[in-house]
Amino acid sequence: MRHCFPEPDRHKRQGFPEAIYSPGKTIEQILTMAEKLSEGSGPVIATRAGEKVFRVLKKRFPGSLYFKTARIILVKRRAGRLPEPAGASYICVVTAGTSDIPVAEEAAVTAEILGNRVKRVFDVGVAGVHRLLQHQDLLNGASCAVVCAGMEGALASVVGGLVPCPVIGVPTSVGYGASFQGLSALLAMLNSCAANVSVVNIDDGFGAGIIASLINNRRVHK
Amino acid sequence: MRHCFPEPDRHKRQGFPEAIYSPGKTIEQILTMAEKLSEGSGPVIATRAGEKVFRVLKKRFPGSLYFKTARIILVKRRAGRLPEPAGASYICVVTAGTSDIPVAEEAAVTAEILGNRVKRVFDVGVAGVHRLLQHQDLLNGASCAVVCAGMEGALASVVGGLVPCPVIGVPTSVGYGASFQGLSALLAMLNSCAANVSVVNIDDGFGAGIIASLINNRRVHK
Amino acid sequence: MRHCFPEPDRHKRQGFPEAIYSPGKTIEQILTMAEKLSEGSGPVIATRAGEKVFRVLKKRFPGSLYFKTARIILVKRRAGRLPEPAGASYICVVTAGTSDIPVAEEAAVTAEILGNRVKRVFDVGVAGVHRLLQHQDLLNGASCAVVCAGMEGALASVVGGLVPCPVIGVPTSVGYGASFQGLSALLAMLNSCAANVSVVNIDDGFGAGIIASLINNRRVHK
Amino acid sequence: MRHCFPEPDRHKRQGFPEAIYSPGKTIEQILTMAEKLSEGSGPVIATRAGEKVFRVLKKRFPGSLYFKTARIILVKRRAGRLPEPAGASYICVVTAGTSDIPVAEEAAVTAEILGNRVKRVFDVGVAGVHRLLQHQDLLNGASCAVVCAGMEGALASVVGGLVPCPVIGVPTSVGYGASFQGLSALLAMLNSCAANVSVVNIDDGFGAGIIASLINNRRVHK
Amino acid sequence: MRHCFPEPDRHKRQGFPEAIYSPGKTIEQILTMAEKLSEGSGPVIATRAGEKVFRVLKKRFPGSLYFKTARIILVKRRAGRLPEPAGASYICVVTAGTSDIPVAEEAAVTAEILGNRVKRVFDVGVAGVHRLLQHQDLLNGASCAVVCAGMEGALASVVGGLVPCPVIGVPTSVGYGASFQGLSALLAMLNSCAANVSVVNIDDGFGAGIIASLINNRRVHK
Amino acid sequence: MRHCFPEPDRHKRQGFPEAIYSPGKTIEQILTMAEKLSEGSGPVIATRAGEKVFRVLKKRFPGSLYFKTARIILVKRRAGRLPEPAGASYICVVTAGTSDIPVAEEAAVTAEILGNRVKRVFDVGVAGVHRLLQHQDLLNGASCAVVCAGMEGALASVVGGLVPCPVIGVPTSVGYGASFQGLSALLAMLNSCAANVSVVNIDDGFGAGIIASLINNRRVHK
Amino acid sequence: MRHCFPEPDRHKRQGFPEAIYSPGKTIEQILTMAEKLSEGSGPVIATRAGEKVFRVLKKRFPGSLYFKTARIILVKRRAGRLPEPAGASYICVVTAGTSDIPVAEEAAVTAEILGNRVKRVFDVGVAGVHRLLQHQDLLNGASCAVVCAGMEGALASVVGGLVPCPVIGVPTSVGYGASFQGLSALLAMLNSCAANVSVVNIDDGFGAGIIASLINNRRVHK
Amino acid sequence: MRHCFPEPDRHKRQGFPEAIYSPGKTIEQILTMAEKLSEGSGPVIATRAGEKVFRVLKKRFPGSLYFKTARIILVKRRAGRLPEPAGASYICVVTAGTSDIPVAEEAAVTAEILGNRVKRVFDVGVAGVHRLLQHQDLLNGASCAVVCAGMEGALASVVGGLVPCPVIGVPTSVGYGASFQGLSALLAMLNSCAANVSVVNIDDGFGAGIIASLINNRRVHK
Repeated sequence: MRHCFPEPDRHKRQGFPEAIYSPGKTIEQILTMAEKLSEGSGPVIATRAGEKVFRVLKKRFPGSLYFKTARIILVKRRAGRLPEPAGASYICVVTAGTSDIPVAEEAAVTAEILGNRVKRVFDVGVAGVHRLLQHQDLLNGASCAVVCAGMEGALASVVGGLVPCPVIGVPTSVGYGASFQGLSALLAMLNSCAANVSVVNIDDGFGAGIIASLINNRRVHK
Repeated sequence: MRHCFPEPDRHKRQGFPEAIYSPGKTIEQILTMAEKLSEGSGPVIATRAGEKVFRVLKKRFPGSLYFKTARIILVKRRAGRLPEPAGASYICVVTAGTSDIPVAEEAAVTAEILGNRVKRVFDVGVAGVHRLLQHQDLLNGASCAVVCAGMEGALASVVGGLVPCPVIGVPTSVGYGASFQGLSALLAMLNSCAANVSVVNIDDGFGAGIIASLINNRRVHK
Repeated sequence: MRHCFPEPDRHKRQGFPEAIYSPGKTIEQILTMAEKLSEGSGPVIATRAGEKVFRVLKKRFPGSLYFKTARIILVKRRAGRLPEPAGASYICVVTAGTSDIPVAEEAAVTAEILGNRVKRVFDVGVAGVHRLLQHQDLLNGASCAVVCAGMEGALASVVGGLVPCPVIGVPTSVGYGASFQGLSALLAMLNSCAANVSVVNIDDGFGAGIIASLINNRRVHK
Repeated sequence: MRHCFPEPDRHKRQGFPEAIYSPGKTIEQILTMAEKLSEGSGPVIATRAGEKVFRVLKKRFPGSLYFKTARIILVKRRAGRLPEPAGASYICVVTAGTSDIPVAEEAAVTAEILGNRVKRVFDVGVAGVHRLLQHQDLLNGASCAVVCAGMEGALASVVGGLVPCPVIGVPTSVGYGASFQGLSALLAMLNSCAANVSVVNIDDGFGAGIIASLINNRRVHK
Repeated sequence: MRHCFPEPDRHKRQGFPEAIYSPGKTIEQILTMAEKLSEGSGPVIATRAGEKVFRVLKKRFPGSLYFKTARIILVKRRAGRLPEPAGASYICVVTAGTSDIPVAEEAAVTAEILGNRVKRVFDVGVAGVHRLLQHQDLLNGASCAVVCAGMEGALASVVGGLVPCPVIGVPTSVGYGASFQGLSALLAMLNSCAANVSVVNIDDGFGAGIIASLINNRRVHK
Repeated sequence: MRHCFPEPDRHKRQGFPEAIYSPGKTIEQILTMAEKLSEGSGPVIATRAGEKVFRVLKKRFPGSLYFKTARIILVKRRAGRLPEPAGASYICVVTAGTSDIPVAEEAAVTAEILGNRVKRVFDVGVAGVHRLLQHQDLLNGASCAVVCAGMEGALASVVGGLVPCPVIGVPTSVGYGASFQGLSALLAMLNSCAANVSVVNIDDGFGAGIIASLINNRRVHK
Repeated sequence: MRHCFPEPDRHKRQGFPEAIYSPGKTIEQILTMAEKLSEGSGPVIATRAGEKVFRVLKKRFPGSLYFKTARIILVKRRAGRLPEPAGASYICVVTAGTSDIPVAEEAAVTAEILGNRVKRVFDVGVAGVHRLLQHQDLLNGASCAVVCAGMEGALASVVGGLVPCPVIGVPTSVGYGASFQGLSALLAMLNSCAANVSVVNIDDGFGAGIIASLINNRRVHK
Repeated sequence: MRHCFPEPDRHKRQGFPEAIYSPGKTIEQILTMAEKLSEGSGPVIATRAGEKVFRVLKKRFPGSLYFKTARIILVKRRAGRLPEPAGASYICVVTAGTSDIPVAEEAAVTAEILGNRVKRVFDVGVAGVHRLLQHQDLLNGASCAVVCAGMEGALASVVGGLVPCPVIGVPTSVGYGASFQGLSALLAMLNSCAANVSVVNIDDGFGAGIIASLINNRRVHK
């Protein structure tokens, strides 16, 4: 729970918002938190949220948007689109396999809500490294790469060895047997020989999206 | 070993150099690697290096500099100072305790060699949080913070909750008993409630310095 | 199961009661235990109990009270309130996040049933340390602090570094990924740099409440 | 390292001193810390210190005392004895085996330096429970018990089931094979069925001594 | 699964029977195995079996008996009682708490089916060691003791320190938090200071019953 | 440390002696313990003892015997042989490899000192199962088997599947890589499909010898 | 997920096909993947697939075959049998217990689909080693052996010590208590004293089948 | 210890020899084993052997050869070269970094002693994947690949995704921090998405060499 207790002024104070981590919370608690957070300046985000939560939130906040694969709700009173990203800089979000996509989308949508341009490179695991290399130009142009992988933690190393920017590894809990719910991917990413790789908690797409946004926005801000 | 096999053109290709990880290598192997890396465009760095290694390298590369606490050798043929950082942006390197300082210096010196301005905030562990808060303005102005802690992995969270920039946590192997050689600090950092914290391997000051440099330099480069 | 086999005379012998740990027990077993324990001098407590258990117990023990968030039943034949605490000394119960509240309430209600004054300081995780510091006077006045946290085990250290009394850390099983069901919080608390912190089992609010009561009551007893 | 960065005013602020954790520190660093800490109001303590460290400290601080088994140095400029404990209340320090004694002495001496009366009950492991029961009256009269055990973590439970006061378990790193350097004792203590047991880090006699002192002194202070 | 593949002649070959481990097997598979095993000389036992399995087996084997708490079915074509134990020697089966009873009954009933006299001493955990000591004469007279405990692995040590016979520890998966599904009890038992304690797998009452029977029967056989 | 605090009357009380676990003890402590234990009725044993310890003990106790591979000293004032075993019953001690022999000898010599007949079957690991089967008659005749193995924990299962007596598995800390200092062997033995296998701590030959002696002596005693 | 992202040309490129790992995928995703993979030259395989998935696939691919115990679907447009294996060489697939059979069948059917002759030797765990030895001639004639075991990881060692060919160990997640979902079997297999044993992920029958096929086919290809 | 107890006829029986694992053995024991093994038909190999051991063996077996980096001694009475490999088929041995080379050489030399052609591809870690791809033709032509890596377990996956032959992963104990002495590499290799990868114990180059030889020789033998 990267975001245990919503704080409306965090966006103003730190440049990124608190989010409502939905699991284990009642609809009522989520509504109260959404109300409280909407007093702040930043976007109001609920993560790991199901469609049922969305339908209830939508009644109180009619402009809300639901990103199904990412399981993210953008809570808004008035309808509207996501902000148009300024400038040409972008974040690359990469996955090893199909099952890693929900976590990758959590990262990508978080970054898009915060005004970043995001390019997705999905299903390029290291067991078919030529597929990854086809995207080398795209990867090289990014200001930051987010790599989500559950079985192939090594993908973060491979990407890290290609690009001239920071890489954020997100281990996912996808896998079976000796994957140990993401622990093996986490360890593989931490042992990366590529010096530009850092890691967030297992399945923490939201955190990766926030960090990628902070890095990508440095160009825009100055 | 964030840097197992030195590659001279990595600096040109990715904007940061390979380093020679000294432990378990003979002086001869280190010399050969230094020769090979010095064909590239970037600085030549040996990490976790003792004074004895320095004395030998110094004979072949008379301009070399030794950073004792950081255990880093900057291998140079001709004498000279570190580059003067351009602009006002800076990296903050923070430690919880005294014993975390060698890892913090590895990060700080790496970043300085790559032309970054670095400010140190040492010995501000969470068991005396008022000491940390005295430095809040300094922390708030940084483009990136590196937090090194062995017993108090939580320091990364506390700093992460204060600053509007990415925070890189470096667990250190300092401690005893249930510290499990840095594992407890690593887990504490991965579970941070502050969404802007990512983590590198235990004791990997070099990696943290590289990532901080990549983030800090974004302003300078554009 | 801090309280596997109820012993009616424990309260007389040790100054604190056995409790009925409800999970995995049939209603019948709980009733029998309640009958047996009510022969002793201390209060009869069932922990981790659902509303269904309460409804059945209430029929046999009409004065019983249910503390819903704490999941505690105080089993009583005759109606009545909790004892009024003597003196001004109090216990502080602190949580990092909203999800830690049930464990915190288990500790708080246990202590209140035993005649202690309890002050609650909830949702003050270390990612927003200023919120914690707003309560510094309250914390400083306590005879004992109980700190419940699942993601931010470090909160125990931060509180431990502020207060002049013993701090009891209760890791909670809240979290995901590398929280490992409370193990990471447990390790973080055990590695605290603040020397006044000790730790109980994951989610063991009852044990923390008992210990806090034993400490707080020392003033009263003499 | 319960005491990573000495803070002279901690004794005034919290009622217990910082200590100098000696391992991994140079004599010079220890001297500097001792100088700095001696500006505060509390006693100056160095833990895990060898005789060589004592001999050097003694030159600068001629009144210093060395507690060999406890590996503690009390750093003092002028000679003198330990404070005479006020009142009759006392702390019991218990060990399972002979090899647990150094950790037990660290706890006992720490408490004695802080003005507490300490009674030692050594070598009463659970494989001969009748030996423990011979000391039941002594245990029952204590305001707090500290139980140190490496192989028999269960001793904390047994003592916890006998006494009407808080019990602080200190797992020790004594043992072999599946003792896993104190981890098994730590887990055994955390799973105690006696609700009055809390636990500190493996081998952390100093922390246990501090907490026991805070509990024992409640009577004295009011 | 102490008994993965039933072998009818094991009883003749080794003096104890194979058993049918029911979980994960279809009724049909269990029936087939029962048919096959009933060709051998020993009793036919199904372990971890629910009432539904019993009802089906009873149709084909009308003399079958069901031991509900032990979750054991004794599969027999013709009705009959358990064998009357020869001689006065007996096995003691001990539990720490109420929740350990199913595993203890699996051990006790297994031994009884094999013709042993069994005496039960339940609910005597180490947090109330006086209750255990009330049974000291009974324990002292046993030829073998089986100790089942989930939270208080130490009970095996305490019993081991009292009796002049082998003690078989059975860790149970009862508990929560840092009990880690029986792992903590397993480690506590392995580290026993009493030299007469050996251990079987978590929850393996059947194995403990077999071993206890082999030890107890040595007198009978000669 | 199966034998933390020597108790002279344990032999009388339980039928087996305390032993002096030598590592981490000074010669003086060992001498004192030997003196104290020699007041009891049973043999005085020091385990994990080097030749230097033997030479010193021999001066005070001139009849002492040293078993070099077993690292056991039998402390005696007057010279003499080991007791002649009564009857024909015997214990089999089995090892998988050469490196497991010291632990096996600790078990064998312990049992011999207690008056048991011991037969050794060494170097019969499961990677050459035909070598084990050559000894099947010998194994079948034993009253108890002790199986010591560091890499091939499975040997305990294989032996357990052959013999009609209890088998005591002793995991040894021999091996490398994923042997994890005996943990893998321990787990393999605990998961044995043979129901007559129980396990002691890693490298605990002494405990295995005691238990085997208690089982083997049942015939003799009645 | 040995086969996260299907790649139609893998069979041509590497001689073995991608497979569709069914868990966590919608029917629609599986259909799309099957369509895509059927453009390649190799067989189209879905693993860990239930009957429901088969019924849907069968409508689109009417020649599909379902291997129920193996949970494998061979996706084919036109009906037909499995290929007849060329030559006499064969793979042996061995299990310790009944519960290991589904994983063993996944390996066996995978190999058969790829044109290999497979011989099954099931239920020959090490607790009854004579049953295994009855099959020694069959095992000796194989070009490769696959050994599946959850409780008795040692079976891989025993087989490895008998046969003159590579042995592939497949730990299965069958078991309870200290089996830790296959981890204990995995460790036992990695520590094998037989030098011809290598290991795949827990429950990875598909991977074992692929490797066995690559080994067995070497004769055929030349 | 893949080779605990040397068996002279293993080479005849299984086609590969026992080896003498040197660590923890006295020179005398090694000599005795060498004598015994030299009665068999296969080569006599001592692994993990230092130069001192070689010098002693050389006196008794004057034709012995020492492979320094591999730490292997080929024990021979008469001088001579390694056998010339028959045919064109070869094994590829690959490493991620320089520090993995000793383990890789153990595998390579083992295979060469057994008459295989070996091609080495060293220092091609995944952080510079283009270096690996330069060797794609060489890798594609191999009958088997051995991949040794301590930090970059993922290299086994990457190679596995390229080649049409079995890949044997050898995790090495090289690394620091969260490499956990090879455990992270082991887990990464077990989770490989490439279905043709199997794994041996950490640092077990000998085992990998034996398996590779068994696979490579299939072509030659038929």
